[in-house]
Amino acid sequence: MVPHLVTALNGPLLDLEKKILGATPAIERWFRMEWQEHTPPFYCSVDLRNAGFKLAPVDTNLFPGGFNNLSPEMLPLAVQAAMAAIEKYCPDAKNLLLIPENHTRNSFYLQNVARLMQIFRQTGLNVRLGTLEDIKKPKQIDLPDGSTITLEPLERSKNGRRLGLKNFDPCTVLLNNDLSIGIPSVLEHLDEQNVLPPLHAGWAVRRKSNHFSAYDDVVKKFAKLVDVDPWMLNPLYAKCGELNLQEDAGSDCLADNVSSLLSKIRKKYKEYGIKEQPFVIVKANAGTYGMGIMTVKDASEVKDLNRKQRSKLVVGKEGLEVNELVIQEGVHSFERINEAVAEPVVYMIDRYVVGGFYRVHAERGINENLNAPGAHFVPLAFQQQHALPDLQAKPGTAAPNRFYMYGVVARLALLAASLEMEKTDPNPEVY
Amino acid sequence: MVPHLVTALNGPLLDLEKKILGATPAIERWFRMEWQEHTPPFYCSVDLRNAGFKLAPVDTNLFPGGFNNLSPEMLPLAVQAAMAAIEKYCPDAKNLLLIPENHTRNSFYLQNVARLMQIFRQTGLNVRLGTLEDIKKPKQIDLPDGSTITLEPLERSKNGRRLGLKNFDPCTVLLNNDLSIGIPSVLEHLDEQNVLPPLHAGWAVRRKSNHFSAYDDVVKKFAKLVDVDPWMLNPLYAKCGELNLQEDAGSDCLADNVSSLLSKIRKKYKEYGIKEQPFVIVKANAGTYGMGIMTVKDASEVKDLNRKQRSKLVVGKEGLEVNELVIQEGVHSFERINEAVAEPVVYMIDRYVVGGFYRVHAERGINENLNAPGAHFVPLAFQQQHALPDLQAKPGTAAPNRFYMYGVVARLALLAASLEMEKTDPNPEVY
Repeated sequence: MVPHLVTALNGPLLDLEKKILGATPAIERWFRMEWQEHTPPFYCSVDLRNAGFKLAPVDTNLFPGGFNNLSPEMLPLAVQAAMAAIEKYCPDAKNLLLIPENHTRNSFYLQNVARLMQIFRQTGLNVRLGTLEDIKKPKQIDLPDGSTITLEPLERSKNGRRLGLKNFDPCTVLLNNDLSIGIPSVLEHLDEQNVLPPLHAGWAVRRKSNHFSAYDDVVKKFAKLVDVDPWMLNPLYAKCGELNLQEDAGSDCLADNVSSLLSKIRKKYKEYGIKEQPFVIVKANAGTYGMGIMTVKDASEVKDLNRKQRSKLVVGKEGLEVNELVIQEGVHSFERINEAVAEPVVYMIDRYVVGGFYRVHAERGINENLNAPGAHFVPLAFQQQHALPDLQAKPGTAAPNRFYMYGVVARLALLAASLEMEKTDPNPEVY
Repeated sequence: MVPHLVTALNGPLLDLEKKILGATPAIERWFRMEWQEHTPPFYCSVDLRNAGFKLAPVDTNLFPGGFNNLSPEMLPLAVQAAMAAIEKYCPDAKNLLLIPENHTRNSFYLQNVARLMQIFRQTGLNVRLGTLEDIKKPKQIDLPDGSTITLEPLERSKNGRRLGLKNFDPCTVLLNNDLSIGIPSVLEHLDEQNVLPPLHAGWAVRRKSNHFSAYDDVVKKFAKLVDVDPWMLNPLYAKCGELNLQEDAGSDCLADNVSSLLSKIRKKYKEYGIKEQPFVIVKANAGTYGMGIMTVKDASEVKDLNRKQRSKLVVGKEGLEVNELVIQEGVHSFERINEAVAEPVVYMIDRYVVGGFYRVHAERGINENLNAPGAHFVPLAFQQQHALPDLQAKPGTAAPNRFYMYGVVARLALLAASLEMEKTDPNPEVY
């Protein structure tokens, strides 16, 4: 199943697909060489939007949930990639401590945790769950499929340099908690263990603007390699200053930036003969994509934000307050499944694409965030016949070809995340 | 689809399946540690036979054909594994030279070659085919699916230390030719390139008895880890001396060895209450499995071999004559697909299982070699729902559980091949 691409102007993207397929050996070699220089994030999911004339990542998640949405057929791929990842950090690893999100009763999320445990068990690890919640004894949670998972209280080792559970000393601590709550002291100074992803990948420290800037660099090189306009793959963006929650300060800067970004987009649309209405996305510089996000078509919309609107923008999950905003060129999502707007989400472990799905939202528009209640998930058709790209196929018609292109663009974001983590590392290793 | 296991006595194997599933983290960690010490073969296929009371590899092929029989859904797994393999030998590799079998018009085999090219292209390599045949200019061959492949004449570089094609200088030379013809001088002394598999993996040098001996060692360790009788996984064997093609010499030794091996098997069958009739397989110590192979139930059958029978045993593919014989405990194949005898074949690239299929032969018996004209292929059901082992399932009922067990046993043979290559390396590297 290839979702229907409902746009008059898909010529540029079909051209991109053709160029990417044709350059496959060069592209894969380029990634191979980049991964010699840079360490990929342990795992990552990337939300893409396909506008027909443009294909771009709009969210790069370093603490991906949703592994339960991947098609079971593709799990061996995840296991194989996880084997490569584990070997890199701790080849003789026996135990893995997984730390999930706090206080969640979301059974979809808990199934993601169970799925991750299943994947890592299969790579040769005993996996147990530690929680940042303040519990005194193990807590069992029943899952919809009849199985249970057990959250256990964390324990620091006697020397203070390791984290574990009762009778469980892991080689690696794997976070599936994005640290929107800040960095808890129990995770600090674990000098004898790998903490993955690193603490500065959490939203207490991470800033989207750093990611965008790293992505700029990556796309510039890649666009040269395959000979396309980098804008095809890269939304324009601007960083705004502080937006004060209490006062009106900051609104002017926001409106000015929105206005200038919109006029840049208009120019590009004109260059390519695109008739759609440009829009930008205003969002907090930190925090998960699903929170604090606003679609804006005209600067006047942000000129006089009331307190409620401002508060919605800057207060994220678990009350994390980030006053800094980023403004990003909006990318229409012109893919449709049964008339509903769909956006692909690509999952990676280490440097490998291990699957993906479409996030589908029947009640949202082509220029709105789909990561919202009411979304459902349709696995990407990796599992269908001829799962390797088909060079003979007419551009735009073969599912594996479109998904290969998605995998390439998602890996550009993955590489950008790797550069971002290097540049923002508070304790860079010197070689 | 799990093929029907037609045997009264499958208790031991269900027990093995249970033990292997339960010990998965320990098993995978054990493999991970072994691969720290030993380099896996570049690629490998292993034929298994499942007797219900016994599961054993009967052929370990270091120049696997048949990649075209893997289900297309699993190809991403092959690509991912090939990426890991290539990175190990030549991280900045741009070009790969693939050398297929000679003089073959077998379109199934040629589709295997095309499939390998497709896999390696997807890992970021330009792949071209060089041939050991004496051709002066490129030769196009049409494939049944309408595509073509081109064989090109080999060229040694000016300094004599590299092999390539016209305007094509590869980093790695990958052999898909088992060198039954001997080692051609054009492949010797390629000091500046990786030749994979190494030349001593070819049947001009390789001996099955070395593989059996390495497999003994591997199974001994593994059987201890999961607490089973090593015999469950390991056919008994004996090496016989020279069988002279012209004279009767060697026949006595052969008959004696057959007799003593049969009595050892009888003892084991008694121990386990197995009512089947024991048999042994007599085959040349070198050469592909499909050639020169004889099922023997009684020593008298080999006592007076006539010249034709003897010649059949010692003359393999392309006339390679190997007088030395090995005798191996026969393993019944009690798996059936639509009443026909079936045996699983598992494919690996680097240390990863990337797929497999059943070789099915309607006209062969449970104690006969199925690798013969008339065989057909059914992909292993890796692609079905819940492709990761299911710990909840009743032993013997879940396809992924049986195939996981097959993957484990195939990797035991893979590890044995790695040890075998180390031990038989004519120029061992000293660290």
